[in-house]
Amino acid sequence: MASIRDVALKAGVGIGTVSRALNGTGYISEETKRKIMEAVAELDYRPNELAQNLYRNRSGVVGFMVPDLEHPFFSSLTKAIEMELYKHGYKCMICDVDRKQSREEEFLEMLQRNVMDGLIAGVDLMTDMDVSTIHRPIVTFDRNWGPMVPNIHSDHKRGGELVAQALLNAGCKRVLQFTPEISSDMSFMERYHTLEQILREHGVEVINIYTGKNQMGYDDDIRIAEVNANYLREVDGIFASDITAATCLRLAHQSGIRVPNQLHIISCDGLPFGRVLYPVLTSIRQNVPEIARACVNAVVKQMDGTRRVPMEQIIDVSFQKGGTV
Amino acid sequence: MASIRDVALKAGVGIGTVSRALNGTGYISEETKRKIMEAVAELDYRPNELAQNLYRNRSGVVGFMVPDLEHPFFSSLTKAIEMELYKHGYKCMICDVDRKQSREEEFLEMLQRNVMDGLIAGVDLMTDMDVSTIHRPIVTFDRNWGPMVPNIHSDHKRGGELVAQALLNAGCKRVLQFTPEISSDMSFMERYHTLEQILREHGVEVINIYTGKNQMGYDDDIRIAEVNANYLREVDGIFASDITAATCLRLAHQSGIRVPNQLHIISCDGLPFGRVLYPVLTSIRQNVPEIARACVNAVVKQMDGTRRVPMEQIIDVSFQKGGTV
Repeated sequence: MASIRDVALKAGVGIGTVSRALNGTGYISEETKRKIMEAVAELDYRPNELAQNLYRNRSGVVGFMVPDLEHPFFSSLTKAIEMELYKHGYKCMICDVDRKQSREEEFLEMLQRNVMDGLIAGVDLMTDMDVSTIHRPIVTFDRNWGPMVPNIHSDHKRGGELVAQALLNAGCKRVLQFTPEISSDMSFMERYHTLEQILREHGVEVINIYTGKNQMGYDDDIRIAEVNANYLREVDGIFASDITAATCLRLAHQSGIRVPNQLHIISCDGLPFGRVLYPVLTSIRQNVPEIARACVNAVVKQMDGTRRVPMEQIIDVSFQKGGTV
Repeated sequence: MASIRDVALKAGVGIGTVSRALNGTGYISEETKRKIMEAVAELDYRPNELAQNLYRNRSGVVGFMVPDLEHPFFSSLTKAIEMELYKHGYKCMICDVDRKQSREEEFLEMLQRNVMDGLIAGVDLMTDMDVSTIHRPIVTFDRNWGPMVPNIHSDHKRGGELVAQALLNAGCKRVLQFTPEISSDMSFMERYHTLEQILREHGVEVINIYTGKNQMGYDDDIRIAEVNANYLREVDGIFASDITAATCLRLAHQSGIRVPNQLHIISCDGLPFGRVLYPVLTSIRQNVPEIARACVNAVVKQMDGTRRVPMEQIIDVSFQKGGTV
């Protein structure tokens, strides 16, 4: 493969001149530039991007840290973020944290060592590391990493209101809600608090099943529904994540409980797989493309040196009518 | 932040000595090494990985090209590959090709420009580019990129046999199979050919619905089932991808067709979401962790300079009993 030396030799100029021409820095006459470009074409020279990145002190890579890549919400979001980064000329490096503090810390270290130009994080911060000392572009999705890190999340309050409205309209009197650890101060807890508050105000009984922090993925979400199957006959409404809600629907079928006549089910996040279920899941839909756009914009702005990124951005949710309410 | 100059100054040595100590190249006395390491610790110096990568001419990154990150099979495989690469000390960069030839070509260009040390590809080769001229480590999963590129795929012949056996045991006489373009020479076509051949040998009628090459994802897989809903009353067996099979199951429920009494359904690839359906999908399961291990091993061996990678590796499949047969 041709080297930069070969190009310089063929064009009859110095290596520094070739480097300046390729990086677009410093003055070079049109005539010299033409000669260099001809040599590049003739030799099929491909600049080593490692060298170019070092020169520019950028990697062109943005990291995305996820709690579980296999989870349908995060696979949709990963796709949308990768597409959005691509539009801005960045590549996407992924890190499935897999509930391991060491993986999280390692990825943050990589951010500090210039392996990435910025980071989008959709995971709880497990490390004791003070992220405010990192001084590199970071954005979180739906997670609280302290006052220095911009957070983008759905309008969970509105989500809770929409669920409450639908369950009240359906005449529910006793609702089962699968909710992560109630003590958490994460943005997404607001949908559960809002739902519970409105239902109680209307005299509806609410039973909370706690799913535990950082518990997500098919195994956990299916298991939590199965171990609580006995509740299905005792309630007339359910609010849960897509996978747990789908499992409740299956358990209802198995027990001869008719949905929605005897039992109403609403899920979040309204993922595509809800459309293959019978009946199709009624859901609160998080706007994945919009979330991805906001996350990428916020990290790109920081990388471009614009510090004016809002510390909180709230994305609309919508009610997705299916057949389970 | 401390620079390599600060470390050299504090340790009382030259920059080249610090560089050699950190990269583990060339002789340095124990005493000097100790002084350098003390300076590194005291100054909290973090080497710039861009510079180190240039020095070693490696990026530590392996690319994974997928046809659709949101598709549950590819999200599971992406997770497994990322985990496996991590064990070997490599990071995973993703590229959702999104059916665009330009994205594929760009990613291959990046491989040539040293942005990645190797590539795992799970997409059809759309470009006219001669990949044999790339001379960089490449492995494909279930795709044919020519005789120079190792291909890892499931035992699709065995898959077809297992489906045939189950449908014959269930007494099926007329089977609907959703199959990609029959003319394709891709490894996965063997399951459809094998199934069809065995069924016909046993006097079973086979109706093929062609899904088109590179058509995958929720929208396409759901639509193809919906537009062929009229067939459900005319057949007693179905073989399709997970999402299409799940949609057939929903359509059967909607039309009052009892599964498995009147209609038997088998899917590939046996993904976790089949477990939330009622009845649970009976499937041919591709062994995702094993596929990921084989792909990563094959690319790591090439990166390590071992050229002895088998050109074809076949991974076992298994029959996953659900309630739809």
